[in-house]
Amino acid sequence: MNRGRPIIQKNMNFEQALQHKIDSRTKPIGSLGKLEDIAFKIGTVQRSLTPELHKPTILVFAADHGIADEGVSASPKEVTYQMVMNFVHGGAGINVFSRQHGIALKVIDAGVDYDFPEGLGIINAKIARGTHNMLHEPAMSTETCRKAMDKGAEFVRKEHENGCNVIGFGEMGIANTSPASLLLHKFAGTPIEECVGKGSGLDEAGVRHKYEILKRIAAKYTPVTPLETLATFGGLEIAMMCGAVLEAKRLNMIILADGFIATSAFLAAYEMQPDILDNTLFSHSSDERGHKQMLDYLHGDPILHLNLRLGEGTGVALAYPIIRSALIFLNEMSSFEEAAVYDMEKKNRPQA
Amino acid sequence: MNRGRPIIQKNMNFEQALQHKIDSRTKPIGSLGKLEDIAFKIGTVQRSLTPELHKPTILVFAADHGIADEGVSASPKEVTYQMVMNFVHGGAGINVFSRQHGIALKVIDAGVDYDFPEGLGIINAKIARGTHNMLHEPAMSTETCRKAMDKGAEFVRKEHENGCNVIGFGEMGIANTSPASLLLHKFAGTPIEECVGKGSGLDEAGVRHKYEILKRIAAKYTPVTPLETLATFGGLEIAMMCGAVLEAKRLNMIILADGFIATSAFLAAYEMQPDILDNTLFSHSSDERGHKQMLDYLHGDPILHLNLRLGEGTGVALAYPIIRSALIFLNEMSSFEEAAVYDMEKKNRPQA
Repeated sequence: MNRGRPIIQKNMNFEQALQHKIDSRTKPIGSLGKLEDIAFKIGTVQRSLTPELHKPTILVFAADHGIADEGVSASPKEVTYQMVMNFVHGGAGINVFSRQHGIALKVIDAGVDYDFPEGLGIINAKIARGTHNMLHEPAMSTETCRKAMDKGAEFVRKEHENGCNVIGFGEMGIANTSPASLLLHKFAGTPIEECVGKGSGLDEAGVRHKYEILKRIAAKYTPVTPLETLATFGGLEIAMMCGAVLEAKRLNMIILADGFIATSAFLAAYEMQPDILDNTLFSHSSDERGHKQMLDYLHGDPILHLNLRLGEGTGVALAYPIIRSALIFLNEMSSFEEAAVYDMEKKNRPQA
Repeated sequence: MNRGRPIIQKNMNFEQALQHKIDSRTKPIGSLGKLEDIAFKIGTVQRSLTPELHKPTILVFAADHGIADEGVSASPKEVTYQMVMNFVHGGAGINVFSRQHGIALKVIDAGVDYDFPEGLGIINAKIARGTHNMLHEPAMSTETCRKAMDKGAEFVRKEHENGCNVIGFGEMGIANTSPASLLLHKFAGTPIEECVGKGSGLDEAGVRHKYEILKRIAAKYTPVTPLETLATFGGLEIAMMCGAVLEAKRLNMIILADGFIATSAFLAAYEMQPDILDNTLFSHSSDERGHKQMLDYLHGDPILHLNLRLGEGTGVALAYPIIRSALIFLNEMSSFEEAAVYDMEKKNRPQA
């Protein structure tokens, strides 16, 4: 059903016509809050008064991290590959929420330190068996970083060719809050102590240790370009997500950001190309320390506030029904005129 | 699919077993934030490690208000019946969101000042053609109020008999933020000026006028019991919702609160029977002034923060997929053991 008849009127530009359509649905002006912002944003990206979302997809990029050797995570490195196996068997958080909402899920090995058996459906894009330990050397070279970004772009292109116009990114990688913290520090200038959180469950002493390690790493390198910064402090899954975000923007898709680590990829993409924000919706505000600072830096107004800190793209999947609701109200609600409901704001509206 | 095998172990009481099940899903402890709280709450209400929601239903109660004569709303009174017509034609916000999530919607005329044609599907429970103007006399007698409450209970009983175990309440009634404000003031003791907001769209002068009117009304009556307070300051739809909440608690259903007006009915129900909170989930934090104070008084931790202020039960419908997600993670995610993922918290858990 689509009640939203085109209602572009004389002397209205597209944005005004879209706002007029939003305001003439049978509800007090502004009373659907953030749903109205989301509808306006998606309509504007698609230049459509009846925007639609097709084949929603989440790509989950998994990789290992050399910095895990320094004891910066509460979980052992093996959990990365174990969780990838859990993804392909359908038992993880991202599986159950994607199923709930009919979101296609692809699991990509961007650089896990494990040889997965064939035939499980894990997409092999292994650039390396994890990054270097950045306490001693940059996480990767700029060439490797660029290669990972190109791979990410390739996956997005494939989904787009398949008819997908809304894509979200998730990740799995033990110790990857550490690269995300460093990227926040370097890109946004946030003091390093405000960038370091407990990740999958460090205790106070663990967070202190992680902070000491990250402080040393932050002081060690002075990369200049965003690409150098991403290569020095990033991860293979983060670099792949960064390339994926840039390509999704080039293809004018709706791009959905997840939590602390996924958002660090948006941070890198933003430094390279600020207009990615025009197409980005921030799915949630994570409980991981530093995510709020990231969102503030990116002027992000997150949809959900559920104290999540799971990653995997779970925030994207959980926010997706709200994003759909925004288009459903725009496309399916009656106007005041159609419903014969008194329109108290009519006098303030462009003339019909 | 239900991966959640019962795992009650020796020396665990039910709450411990439920928490153990939540904590042994493949995710860091607590990392699903509010979803974990929701899963725990619903599991506890149902005394089940595999809780389920059946036949989700929203009852929308509509009524008119004598106080509308004092110009306390930006909308004319006719909008109440016009929006009820919009509900039965399927074009309002609550229609499109309920459809999206497979929620059954019933529209109940609790006291609209209009004669609806037969055959539209509007459930006729008209107690009166609106309340009295409480600037001059109590909104209704305690007998009328009790009658409305009994009607609300009857509707809930019917849904429960039909297999529904999760129910939300919405409302439509021009000027009904005024009774909700007065109920907040009287029940929670919130200063009247903090209870008065712009409703469907009053400007600053309009809010000031509304405040002056409500201040006079608040000073005029000194009801003693919760029933007297509800009768004096309430509305027919609010009284019906209050009775519905109490009955839903008696039937041990999951009860979903919507925005400012619906929550005022929970406030009244809470004064009569505080344990309704055991079964209540607060769907969202409304943009209407005073809702935050209501939620604080009821110790409510709202699921969504979307700056909604539409009413109708729209917050309930929009939050419903999140509530479902809470049970889906509990029932469908693998445990660490099932997925062969290293469980870093095992040492802190009750012995297997």
